[in-house]
Amino acid sequence: MKRLTILAAGLLMCVMSFAQQALWGVPQVISPEIHENNTVTFRLKAPKAVKVQVTGDFLPTQKIKTPYGEFDAPGFADLTEGKDGLWEYTTSNQLKPELYSYSFIVDGLKTIDPNNVYLNRDVASITNIFIIGGERADLYKVNKVPHGTVSRIWYNSPTLGMERRMTVYTPAGYEASGKRYPVFYLLHGMGGDEEAWIALGRTAQILDNLIAKGKAKPMIVVMTNGNASQEAAPGESSAGLVPPNTQLPKTMEGSFEMAFPDVVKFVDNNYRTIKSKSGRAIAGLSMGGFHSMHISKQFPDLFNYVGLFSAAILPNKDAKSPVYENLEGKLKVQFSKKPALYWIAIGKADFLYKANEDYRKLLDEKGYKYTYYETGEGHIWKNWRIYLTEFTPLLFK
Amino acid sequence: MKRLTILAAGLLMCVMSFAQQALWGVPQVISPEIHENNTVTFRLKAPKAVKVQVTGDFLPTQKIKTPYGEFDAPGFADLTEGKDGLWEYTTSNQLKPELYSYSFIVDGLKTIDPNNVYLNRDVASITNIFIIGGERADLYKVNKVPHGTVSRIWYNSPTLGMERRMTVYTPAGYEASGKRYPVFYLLHGMGGDEEAWIALGRTAQILDNLIAKGKAKPMIVVMTNGNASQEAAPGESSAGLVPPNTQLPKTMEGSFEMAFPDVVKFVDNNYRTIKSKSGRAIAGLSMGGFHSMHISKQFPDLFNYVGLFSAAILPNKDAKSPVYENLEGKLKVQFSKKPALYWIAIGKADFLYKANEDYRKLLDEKGYKYTYYETGEGHIWKNWRIYLTEFTPLLFK
Repeated sequence: MKRLTILAAGLLMCVMSFAQQALWGVPQVISPEIHENNTVTFRLKAPKAVKVQVTGDFLPTQKIKTPYGEFDAPGFADLTEGKDGLWEYTTSNQLKPELYSYSFIVDGLKTIDPNNVYLNRDVASITNIFIIGGERADLYKVNKVPHGTVSRIWYNSPTLGMERRMTVYTPAGYEASGKRYPVFYLLHGMGGDEEAWIALGRTAQILDNLIAKGKAKPMIVVMTNGNASQEAAPGESSAGLVPPNTQLPKTMEGSFEMAFPDVVKFVDNNYRTIKSKSGRAIAGLSMGGFHSMHISKQFPDLFNYVGLFSAAILPNKDAKSPVYENLEGKLKVQFSKKPALYWIAIGKADFLYKANEDYRKLLDEKGYKYTYYETGEGHIWKNWRIYLTEFTPLLFK
Repeated sequence: MKRLTILAAGLLMCVMSFAQQALWGVPQVISPEIHENNTVTFRLKAPKAVKVQVTGDFLPTQKIKTPYGEFDAPGFADLTEGKDGLWEYTTSNQLKPELYSYSFIVDGLKTIDPNNVYLNRDVASITNIFIIGGERADLYKVNKVPHGTVSRIWYNSPTLGMERRMTVYTPAGYEASGKRYPVFYLLHGMGGDEEAWIALGRTAQILDNLIAKGKAKPMIVVMTNGNASQEAAPGESSAGLVPPNTQLPKTMEGSFEMAFPDVVKFVDNNYRTIKSKSGRAIAGLSMGGFHSMHISKQFPDLFNYVGLFSAAILPNKDAKSPVYENLEGKLKVQFSKKPALYWIAIGKADFLYKANEDYRKLLDEKGYKYTYYETGEGHIWKNWRIYLTEFTPLLFK
């Protein structure tokens, strides 16, 4: 590098240093700031704003009225304007360990926190996230433990006539171990896709941490896309970068359930799996619980472990699929084969509570054995992460 | 499901239908809207805003003055307020095929477009993206072609004493083919990480499309994290969800380069690779070009193909690593072994143009053979995607 004169080299180093400053300069605004006592301060620099609010699931819920009844929605809190247009709000309470999401509302416009690059997409909404550690929430963190591999892989579904995308977690050491592993099929809810469990559900972190603690067996987790007309999650398919809400997917009409053996066949042919009922579990949240219920009874020799997380156990009168015919007869066959675990979980405040209660009554009357797990609150990701941490340790024992 | 009274079932279907409406209801605002003639309309509903602007790389650049000289920055355009607080701007020009990024600025506050869920993170900035198709930009789209698998996998680096994360692309059919594949190591620039090439660089789409057209050989692409003190990208490591700019990484001081054989060893032990120089390429952008230059000459028997994309060929006087000693002697050894390809690319307006010109002069004087590819514009992702589409077809022929 003798060719560079000292002057030129000096100038270039200055430019690089300027770039580095811009890239990593100490940020003006820290937001969110998690204090030692687990109160949290949110900050936004917005000198021209008249009103700044924060909304998120860390705040007490408020009731909203709809034509269909009252629902719980996240609350709001006002930020206060300080010096130089820096707005600020500190929670009055210490927050409990949890993964939280929030947005700012600036003069009526919902926006992300520009000082927080950590985001989740839930259907068509982008929100910021933060984690208060401790207790169960430590399972949601990336810790210094052996890490599994997370892959996005495409498979062919002859039944649906499509190439489709799935997300696959293989446990730490899978690549080199030469061993065979059991497989847990984990299904998302309405509006979700093959990204939902890995992002919002923290599946890779939960599995890494449970396996490292010896609380769960090393296993493969397969997260499918349950919308039978979609190749892949929004932005990841040949539909292009179109708004997610223009891609109304086909759901709960039977075709995803009927095509599920294509998924199992692909996974068995492309991963080192235990290719038998004893090595397979299926569970899902909301619509995915509905799917898990129907798939596991439609194909009673495929899954030994079944989990219904806040399952949308709803009759679909418009669906003509054979999947939904003869429910009781198929349940009789499924339970006669004695699944190792049939696990039902729901929150006390879930709008699907009654439907699940009715379903459990049916199982009780028939004497079909299941395990029931009830939490507080409703139809929210907080509950589904809890169910994942409770269900996974019960598998493949 | 006979247990559910018709009333209850009807109510639940209403609730589900309400939820579905909320999830997929026709959006009020379409933004960005790409018209048939490739003009684009941006829209934002902000009834209380006084001024709304859009900024992005689809607009003509403007000069900004810094203590180190003038730089090009993205331009701005004003949106106009229409009915009901709906602001709008349509480009005056038809946009050329490209992947573009943009943000809104509402009364001075930079924000994402709430109607566009497609985002990229570049270091600590989140921006929206859209694609104008056609020509080379069709390579950046997900098309109906066989798709490779994208994995995030952790490896052990004994040299750095850390578990570290990398992103690996394996070509369509890899899992079941039983074949061995060549490996292309692809390195990011300053501020980037193992997510940069796959997200901003559209590597999976470019490789899928080039391979499907028969223009590139099926190959594995390994995207490392070049910050030797980081386990993984922001949010993906045990550092937690801390702002990226508080994690000042160790860069360009030799340790990443010295530890690179750990990466090659892991990949050769965990993937079906061609384990020889003829089956290995290395390239990188900016700092990654600097890394590629130093790694390929430090270990002259590892890589047969070398690509320097807008390489930060800068002497680092503070770095004491043996990697940077005896440059000319090591280049002599490297070129005496006749690499199949030594490829240098840069944009005419790049602030590193002169440094690359000086480096080429050195190679010319010594009679070392290389291929040179020059584009317009400067140190931007648009150029790096172009270089990837040009370089990849030259590999492993």
